[in-house]
Amino acid sequence: MTTFDYESLIVSIPDYPEPGVVFKDITPLLADPEGFNAVIDGIAEHFAGKGITKVVGAEARGFMIGAPVAARMGAGFVPARKPGKLPRETVSESYALEYGTDSLEIHADALSPEDKVLMVDDLIATGGTAAAQVKLIECVGAELVGMGFLMSLDFLEPEKVVGAVTDVEMFSLVHVK
Amino acid sequence: MTTFDYESLIVSIPDYPEPGVVFKDITPLLADPEGFNAVIDGIAEHFAGKGITKVVGAEARGFMIGAPVAARMGAGFVPARKPGKLPRETVSESYALEYGTDSLEIHADALSPEDKVLMVDDLIATGGTAAAQVKLIECVGAELVGMGFLMSLDFLEPEKVVGAVTDVEMFSLVHVK
Repeated sequence: MTTFDYESLIVSIPDYPEPGVVFKDITPLLADPEGFNAVIDGIAEHFAGKGITKVVGAEARGFMIGAPVAARMGAGFVPARKPGKLPRETVSESYALEYGTDSLEIHADALSPEDKVLMVDDLIATGGTAAAQVKLIECVGAELVGMGFLMSLDFLEPEKVVGAVTDVEMFSLVHVK
Repeated sequence: MTTFDYESLIVSIPDYPEPGVVFKDITPLLADPEGFNAVIDGIAEHFAGKGITKVVGAEARGFMIGAPVAARMGAGFVPARKPGKLPRETVSESYALEYGTDSLEIHADALSPEDKVLMVDDLIATGGTAAAQVKLIECVGAELVGMGFLMSLDFLEPEKVVGAVTDVEMFSLVHVK
């Protein structure tokens, strides 16, 4: 297993984007060749041997981690996008924000029942976008095998929301207690 | 050099997002394990041996190609984002759209003068977003070594706009005449 001090390259920004929130800026970690490679290896190696055929990643930061994990695992990459960005028939799932809702879409033909899918994102916080992606993956009949994250905000208890829709493993390289 | 019939997995959508425009949907190519791997290899191999230390990719589709190319080349990845998405000090460049303008930002400390940079995107069309990224890269004092694209809409003559700001190579796997 790759070992790297990921947290040394993650910058905490207090009161961003609003007072009381500490934003975790992962861009210095992604810009570091050794650190970026360790992130991709860390997730890809954890799920090696599971027969993953597709990685699903959500717009936009999920693309930065999910696409290279897909490439490293020899899998295809399927983007879960904001509404109106995909040109053909889609399936859509909405999820709750602090105020209001947002939604994610994938192409209806992006996955097949033969696919074994890994969901990858930079961060899992409340679990809302992850749960929406789980529903999208299962809606098109594919098999979700696991979820890999660079970072989990454990204090927000994402397993409560995600556990209501799936029991697959939620793996994170970094845990914020 | 990797050879793959990329165009067999790119879907043309007539009159999307508006009448008279033919949208090129690359998602089937990215979802195909062999095709996705060939895209990443095709760009990474073309620029191998150039000492690339960082890959810059623009929000959002540029992340899907740029991040895996960075990982394959052993480089870091630097996102060029829409305004308001990066939490620390940024440099910003605006570019013309058909109606109005948009802009892209990178963190002011994302690149250094020692960096040798490859710009990667899925598509080059009029060249506006590419030219904005060239200016961002040079604004922070880094060296732009080349630009790699999955697809070039040659009939829009992107070299006119890009050639006004740089003379580095514009390499594309697929050319639409």
